[in-house]
Amino acid sequence: MKKVNESMLIDFYEFTMANGYFEHGYKDQTVYFDLFFRTIPNKGGYAIMAGLESVIEFIENLSFTEEDIAYLRKRNMFSDAFLTYLKDFTFTGDIYALKEGTVIFPNEPILTVRATTIEAQLIETYLLVAINHQSLIATKASRLKQAAGDRLLIEMGARRAHGVSSANLGARAAYIGGADLTSNTYADRHLNIPASGTMAHSWIQLFDTEIEAFRAYAKTYPSQTTFLVDTYDTLKSGIPNAIEVIKEVLIPKGIKTYAIRIDSGDLTYLSKQARQMLDEAGLTDCKIVASNALDEYLIKTIIDQGAPIDIFGVGERLITAKSDPVFGGVYKLTAIESDGIVMPKIKISDNPAKITTPHFKNVYRIYDKKTGKAQADLLTIYNETIDETAPLTLFNPEHTWQTTTYEDYTLKNLMEPIFKAGKLVYDKPKIEAIRAYCKDQVAHLWDEMKRFEHPHKYYVDLSKKLWDVKMDLINSNRSKIAGK
Amino acid sequence: MKKVNESMLIDFYEFTMANGYFEHGYKDQTVYFDLFFRTIPNKGGYAIMAGLESVIEFIENLSFTEEDIAYLRKRNMFSDAFLTYLKDFTFTGDIYALKEGTVIFPNEPILTVRATTIEAQLIETYLLVAINHQSLIATKASRLKQAAGDRLLIEMGARRAHGVSSANLGARAAYIGGADLTSNTYADRHLNIPASGTMAHSWIQLFDTEIEAFRAYAKTYPSQTTFLVDTYDTLKSGIPNAIEVIKEVLIPKGIKTYAIRIDSGDLTYLSKQARQMLDEAGLTDCKIVASNALDEYLIKTIIDQGAPIDIFGVGERLITAKSDPVFGGVYKLTAIESDGIVMPKIKISDNPAKITTPHFKNVYRIYDKKTGKAQADLLTIYNETIDETAPLTLFNPEHTWQTTTYEDYTLKNLMEPIFKAGKLVYDKPKIEAIRAYCKDQVAHLWDEMKRFEHPHKYYVDLSKKLWDVKMDLINSNRSKIAGK
Repeated sequence: MKKVNESMLIDFYEFTMANGYFEHGYKDQTVYFDLFFRTIPNKGGYAIMAGLESVIEFIENLSFTEEDIAYLRKRNMFSDAFLTYLKDFTFTGDIYALKEGTVIFPNEPILTVRATTIEAQLIETYLLVAINHQSLIATKASRLKQAAGDRLLIEMGARRAHGVSSANLGARAAYIGGADLTSNTYADRHLNIPASGTMAHSWIQLFDTEIEAFRAYAKTYPSQTTFLVDTYDTLKSGIPNAIEVIKEVLIPKGIKTYAIRIDSGDLTYLSKQARQMLDEAGLTDCKIVASNALDEYLIKTIIDQGAPIDIFGVGERLITAKSDPVFGGVYKLTAIESDGIVMPKIKISDNPAKITTPHFKNVYRIYDKKTGKAQADLLTIYNETIDETAPLTLFNPEHTWQTTTYEDYTLKNLMEPIFKAGKLVYDKPKIEAIRAYCKDQVAHLWDEMKRFEHPHKYYVDLSKKLWDVKMDLINSNRSKIAGK
Repeated sequence: MKKVNESMLIDFYEFTMANGYFEHGYKDQTVYFDLFFRTIPNKGGYAIMAGLESVIEFIENLSFTEEDIAYLRKRNMFSDAFLTYLKDFTFTGDIYALKEGTVIFPNEPILTVRATTIEAQLIETYLLVAINHQSLIATKASRLKQAAGDRLLIEMGARRAHGVSSANLGARAAYIGGADLTSNTYADRHLNIPASGTMAHSWIQLFDTEIEAFRAYAKTYPSQTTFLVDTYDTLKSGIPNAIEVIKEVLIPKGIKTYAIRIDSGDLTYLSKQARQMLDEAGLTDCKIVASNALDEYLIKTIIDQGAPIDIFGVGERLITAKSDPVFGGVYKLTAIESDGIVMPKIKISDNPAKITTPHFKNVYRIYDKKTGKAQADLLTIYNETIDETAPLTLFNPEHTWQTTTYEDYTLKNLMEPIFKAGKLVYDKPKIEAIRAYCKDQVAHLWDEMKRFEHPHKYYVDLSKKLWDVKMDLINSNRSKIAGK
């Protein structure tokens, strides 16, 4: 058991800025930051929100020890007043967020912080690392689940993860996104993600023969045996030995829950051969597990080719999101507040896609009443109201003359209050509820958005009021620079 | 401060196998496992070993709590005798490893475990996650350093890391491999990796104007100011404002340590323009920092195009090793020991590259006496001796008729004892020593191995004795399968 203080996982510039805010009279200035992302990994049609529970745990534990302060003092950059202030530091602001498991899209806030400058800044790094990492893996798992369909999906990537939290919280995020099981015992013991596992090649090598190894395993775990069949030769040795042991040890006990696992070679060819050999031996109940550097693209191809695989084990390519391992969440100032008035702020860029959407906002999802499908998301200013009984006309934020009108719709505000004045006000759902919510969220997307190639683009639109605020700020910034 | 027990980061099949070994009389069987990898990420010429310090920490803390045992009991798969055995479990075996910072190659043991079946099996997952992750990042950082040359390299990827340990231990691994600084305060405070940082866009947005923001920062940190110049317009606003503040605030104090940072746009074009503007203003001391989704390929291109950049900030593409985010270390049984006799074991595969090299082994590096360069690595049986005064003839393991003879060479055994009978016998080097050792290791490689495209292949050869053992085992396994 070791003690870990994660509070110092803060980019150093947050401390230099925080001390600067303190010195320049911005200590009590209330600010708003949005956490959002700009592109979906793998050019996919949607992403999955995850990481909020880690954020909550971080915020609740956030404080600086005497040793932390002593370290900062040694850096010779920070004022005594600031260091004294850090001694009793806790987070006292508000946090709003989309729930874990929510389907999320680029350029909408998935988390909003309202806090003093220093508080908002010091939590930036951790919020990003938690949400970027876990949303990345949940999104990847959802893609894998699209490919695997009803077949079971086992996350087994711990050994190739990027460290301990990548393995453990990655297993949790994968479960939210659609994995059914994990290989990682920690995730089961501490995070309630069901873990499973049977044997490695070493088990088989340790016995004098493969069949002895299989027999020993089947006797110890009769109702939970998966025979790993590729240690010596899958078709000539592994499968015949598995069949023999199933008939000798398991069938007489009336057991029907057994499987073989193929971990190398051409999985389509071998699974077809295996299915035939098993069926000819009368073992139609025997499941076939396949693993070995699988991802959603390979799984799709294998299934398209008719491979009779029942369960996919997915390792390194899920736990590292190998095909696109960066979830590019950013954290940007959107407003400041003085005397209760919220004043929007913007960050300009030569690249239009990098111009931020200002203001303290709400995120609404528009559902078609007839189909139940999600149609678009709508960002509004925090205190705007929308008359749900009237038709709702949205315009394309890139081509503003293009408009769409929704008549028969429902609106759902996705932003949930998580912390108010530093106090947790959110009732943390259990992992099974988060997973079910995610499944339901994905079920409400059009199939066209779930394709891997050229998925249908889902729009995140701005209300007219919010659009006007953004345009005004762009114009005033432009004239400021021009007038220089 | 939270308490974390990482002991349960163990793939579930390790527990089912361990209980099986216990039940089938293999509890006290001594076994040998090698940890090795098969391919270098990005088809590079070499990799860097890292993660050993995490392994040591894990082994020293490894134990199971009452709650861990209760969790396992609830799974209804494990015998009472096994669960009782786990109560007092500690690691009592031997571990040998290559030091952190060592240049490593495919198919040579980088860590060897000699322990009982159960002990060797239960530590597998953690050993792999620690070494795979940290070697991945150290290797990536070494590539970045090859590209950056003498220019400083700042690791600033925390926010895009795959969780807390990816950020923290990733910063450490990057430092071993060649990064000069990190943005991550945790890494400085707890792991002695120097951290730095100045301002984000939010600092500038919070002030009414960019120049006020720059002025405030320069006044607070006169000797450590890096102006982020791309918030509004790099050339029209950011750089002119930085120049004005440098002249107004820093020059009168005689300060020469200042810089600007460009975080978007065409870094080559903008840095050339910036250099010209700064030089024309007489600020030839001003350094230029560039960041924005950089990796070794982009850095090489930017430098080739003559960009006058002094410092590179590298974020997501280093901390996730984006171009190839999997380090494929595996952990394979290589021998068992009975009555002091070591008996080699092998894992056969249809794929020749996946056939393991059996036996308890040593790893020698052969250095050319004249140039000091590393020529090849040689794997030998643990108790083989080599006469260094005689010429050494090695044969190509793929094309055995090809031989090379070394005359004027020195040999270095790279395997260090880390644990003996469960006791740490290794004097853990300080991080600066590890980094210096890594730099020296890389300096002893031929330049041809450091290319990104088609690097020269370095050979890991087997001694004649070891080769014969491997061939005998392949043949006897083949006849076993054929005789079935």
